Amino acid sequence: MEEAKKATTTMEEVRGEERKETAPASDVSLKELSKKLDDFAKERDWEMHHAPRNLLLAMIAEVGELSELFMWKGEVTKGLKDWTEAEKEHLGEELSDVLLYLIRLSDMCGVDLGDAATRKIVKNAVKYPAPSKST
Amino acid sequence: MEEAKKATTTMEEVRGEERKETAPASDVSLKELSKKLDDFAKERDWEMHHAPRNLLLAMIAEVGELSELFMWKGEVTKGLKDWTEAEKEHLGEELSDVLLYLIRLSDMCGVDLGDAATRKIVKNAVKYPAPSKST
Amino acid sequence: MEEAKKATTTMEEVRGEERKETAPASDVSLKELSKKLDDFAKERDWEMHHAPRNLLLAMIAEVGELSELFMWKGEVTKGLKDWTEAEKEHLGEELSDVLLYLIRLSDMCGVDLGDAATRKIVKNAVKYPAPSKST
Amino acid sequence: MEEAKKATTTMEEVRGEERKETAPASDVSLKELSKKLDDFAKERDWEMHHAPRNLLLAMIAEVGELSELFMWKGEVTKGLKDWTEAEKEHLGEELSDVLLYLIRLSDMCGVDLGDAATRKIVKNAVKYPAPSKST
Repeated sequence: MEEAKKATTTMEEVRGEERKETAPASDVSLKELSKKLDDFAKERDWEMHHAPRNLLLAMIAEVGELSELFMWKGEVTKGLKDWTEAEKEHLGEELSDVLLYLIRLSDMCGVDLGDAATRKIVKNAVKYPAPSKST
Repeated sequence: MEEAKKATTTMEEVRGEERKETAPASDVSLKELSKKLDDFAKERDWEMHHAPRNLLLAMIAEVGELSELFMWKGEVTKGLKDWTEAEKEHLGEELSDVLLYLIRLSDMCGVDLGDAATRKIVKNAVKYPAPSKST
Repeated sequence: MEEAKKATTTMEEVRGEERKETAPASDVSLKELSKKLDDFAKERDWEMHHAPRNLLLAMIAEVGELSELFMWKGEVTKGLKDWTEAEKEHLGEELSDVLLYLIRLSDMCGVDLGDAATRKIVKNAVKYPAPSKST
Repeated sequence: MEEAKKATTTMEEVRGEERKETAPASDVSLKELSKKLDDFAKERDWEMHHAPRNLLLAMIAEVGELSELFMWKGEVTKGLKDWTEAEKEHLGEELSDVLLYLIRLSDMCGVDLGDAATRKIVKNAVKYPAPSKST
């Protein structure tokens, strides 16, 4: 009994650790972001504004702001070696804005984005088979 | 000793269940998608094509295809009640294409998208405070 | 009298020549394109589809197709020296599609695009003064 | 001689009037805008920045600003009856920004936009024939 209780406690601790381990701040899932956005809209009574075409246009506005960061740069190298930290921070925000509207748009359309994306990768793998690695 | 081993086993089982519980097929994380995209590019020797501005323009091309699905629809209701299953399936693919290029673009820029998005939601909450719920 | 008539004739001829001179096939005005698009829509009974947001999304779909032509190219030089004639022809079509929806969108919004653009250039010149050419 | 001179003068006057008649401020041609943009860039020594992909991304940034004006509006009626004068003025500027970058992009690609657009309308008319008007 005592032993069992201890085990349970341990398992709860494991669960907690597990969560931290598998879901660090930066390994967020699409569903977690989706939930946060839903709460955000509800708390502000913004749901009425979130018709699909409104969200699509909002996302496109953010794509425009993202493009603005790249427009006079000429070719940009991977890792953005010549960008300042402030520019990279700004870039992270614009990429996020596109993502957040994309997730919200999917939700308002009743599309499970994580599921759809996972299936799309499989479909792409069929469409573009990897070259054989045999000798 | 025996007890300890049993506990360990149990914890492993918990870990397995935990994973299933918190990460069902459709609750994919951004990092998991990122990893799949990286493998995909490596297997096809496509990394050379993935310069940031190439990926940005590829993403914009997909935003265009997404817009195409909405362009002659007039206002669209939440849940897309009037859309056929085929249309919704197509929509899921276009939303996914935008997401996948967005993730890949972030990776090629060295931006941790999940982390950036999580922080952006916090920043938005500060910028647009929720109305007080006090009585 | 006779002289006057002759003069009139001459003036009419001048008018004709003038038109050819100042308006060769390729020096089309925005109003001419606008008129063609209006006739086109009326003849096909498509006016009902031309709500502003429909046209905006249609234009964005075309921007996507335009981006598609540039996405895997890396940096592109002025004059597109490495492009085939077929690619340039295709490019001309995509640029045109963006233009035509932009004109139609402006018209459906009651905006005189040529007038607005002319004024915008003046505004830009004030905002970004040319460096002095004095010695 | 005197008569001839008079006729010449008259023709010159006609030419002047003609120009005003066929090219009022708002019936600007694409070539005229193109010329203004070229002068603008030259005077500011901005030509070096006008690589095709830079201009494409700049245009997309403006498409984003244009979308921003429509994003929370829900469906918008033709003629924008509910918009304020300030909003319409702003709209005219954003539409113009898209147009000006589109023209400049075409020029830097060596595409005659007016010519291409005129031909595209003809091509569209073949692709989508107008319904017969016969009884």
